Amino acid sequence: MRAGASPARLKALVALLDISGTFVFAVEGALAAIRSNMELLGVLVLSFVTALGGGIVRDLIIGATPPSAFQDRRYPLTAFAAAVVSFVLFEHVQSIPIGLVQTLDAAGLALFAVAGAEKALDWRIDPLGAVLLGGITGVGGGTIRDVFLARIPLVLQADVYATAALLGAAIVVAGRAIRVPATGAALAGGIACLTLRLLSLHFHWALPKAPIS
Amino acid sequence: MRAGASPARLKALVALLDISGTFVFAVEGALAAIRSNMELLGVLVLSFVTALGGGIVRDLIIGATPPSAFQDRRYPLTAFAAAVVSFVLFEHVQSIPIGLVQTLDAAGLALFAVAGAEKALDWRIDPLGAVLLGGITGVGGGTIRDVFLARIPLVLQADVYATAALLGAAIVVAGRAIRVPATGAALAGGIACLTLRLLSLHFHWALPKAPIS
Amino acid sequence: MRAGASPARLKALVALLDISGTFVFAVEGALAAIRSNMELLGVLVLSFVTALGGGIVRDLIIGATPPSAFQDRRYPLTAFAAAVVSFVLFEHVQSIPIGLVQTLDAAGLALFAVAGAEKALDWRIDPLGAVLLGGITGVGGGTIRDVFLARIPLVLQADVYATAALLGAAIVVAGRAIRVPATGAALAGGIACLTLRLLSLHFHWALPKAPIS
Repeated sequence: MRAGASPARLKALVALLDISGTFVFAVEGALAAIRSNMELLGVLVLSFVTALGGGIVRDLIIGATPPSAFQDRRYPLTAFAAAVVSFVLFEHVQSIPIGLVQTLDAAGLALFAVAGAEKALDWRIDPLGAVLLGGITGVGGGTIRDVFLARIPLVLQADVYATAALLGAAIVVAGRAIRVPATGAALAGGIACLTLRLLSLHFHWALPKAPIS
Repeated sequence: MRAGASPARLKALVALLDISGTFVFAVEGALAAIRSNMELLGVLVLSFVTALGGGIVRDLIIGATPPSAFQDRRYPLTAFAAAVVSFVLFEHVQSIPIGLVQTLDAAGLALFAVAGAEKALDWRIDPLGAVLLGGITGVGGGTIRDVFLARIPLVLQADVYATAALLGAAIVVAGRAIRVPATGAALAGGIACLTLRLLSLHFHWALPKAPIS
Repeated sequence: MRAGASPARLKALVALLDISGTFVFAVEGALAAIRSNMELLGVLVLSFVTALGGGIVRDLIIGATPPSAFQDRRYPLTAFAAAVVSFVLFEHVQSIPIGLVQTLDAAGLALFAVAGAEKALDWRIDPLGAVLLGGITGVGGGTIRDVFLARIPLVLQADVYATAALLGAAIVVAGRAIRVPATGAALAGGIACLTLRLLSLHFHWALPKAPIS
């Protein structure tokens, strides 16, 4: 972030990133719905919950009602637009290379985790709670999507995914504690989350399992 | 609604309709539980969540805590009464013609969608959010029921069901925007939801699916 | 509780019991996660939701945001400690006799049900709602755990489990209504819940099922 960035320009950038993350997550929800043979309504619903479910749960927990997804119509409209695009252009969206999808998803995860931790801190949540809420913001939507698909949430099962979100959130919270400027802490947290996620994909990292004899 | 209806009489009518919708939805929850071989406690719980889950989620989202289901005991008592009746008279309730069950369910859906959108507007939710909350009030309980039964929610899979709820809610919200009297908008929304639902059942309407080659 | 117990000592005892119940429930969540072949992150998440999910749902419903699980770090730290212990010592924890596990679980259930009903009453919830919230506090965490494992919640299917929680909560609420001292009502409710649960385990009590011909 260059030093000369005005607050207004910064705010617009943050909003743009937030909407972009919403779009990416909504596309993933739509694809999951279409692959489960759902009709248009189910596709719209899964796009909405995948993209906005994490933020809704975070807002309910911190007491920020109504959640932004129900008060700022740019969010649901973005999710529904992503659903319609995925629906109409399914074959094309489906053929986007998996590496690109994973990279965009990792970027969305980083954005949501960082934004979630920051909002929790703004609402005076305890630092540990703010880290957890950053993680919930990042992975909550995908978790609700999997519950609606009657599957064990992917995020619980494998991969360094929620872990990357928690790392990004923890860096934001630690930065606030030692009074690093908010923009710097957000950038550091987002880059750490994105990097850990992409490295774990590249090297097939996994977390340990309990020693079962 | 005739012009001479006094506010008190109107209020009593709305409460009666609300309780009736709760009863119908609770019976459907009880039948699903009994068919899944649950004991009495499970039947009571599924009746409660099917009938009141949508309104509880709506109230949490708009910030109206505690939700009416936990503050006005007529609602849980109605749900539990429906559970006990369904439990004791299972064979009889089960033999109610499917057409009648679907019609009563459609009426309950219309009532909940309209009431949900109105409450959201009363709490100053953005119009698009109010439409979504009308839909959630209508289909949320059945969604939680299906999640508890470890099934993909029926509402996501087929039929013009949530769509009818959203239509009814949209009419209520549009009516408020153009300053139609609330009673008229509610009636129009409810009748539209009911009609669309019944027509879709009769003609086996379905929403489109994505073009998968 | 002897009459001479000072308020401070009583408060410390209640906090200790609360933390102990959290630990027991978290161990059960961790074991379920490990048996489902999850990695460390999944184990931590299931410990957290099993131990704290019921209280979180209760706090959202009564409007006590943020829930204690996100504001008082002793709760998440206890859950995570239980997860790590269960993870590292899985074979040992697994070999704890089932009778001891069930007794500790019944004690945790009693504690959570009583504490949940009391907190609901303190927040001026209607008595019937407070009974339901006591039950939700007791069984909500296990319910979310089972939903995350894509299973029908055990609590809905069999056993006198939620019933015992509701009994304990009902005694607390009744005691408050007839102005029994809070400590006495809490003890009576907790003992009733624990006793009913242990008796039902010993005698294999079950609730009735609907008469299906």
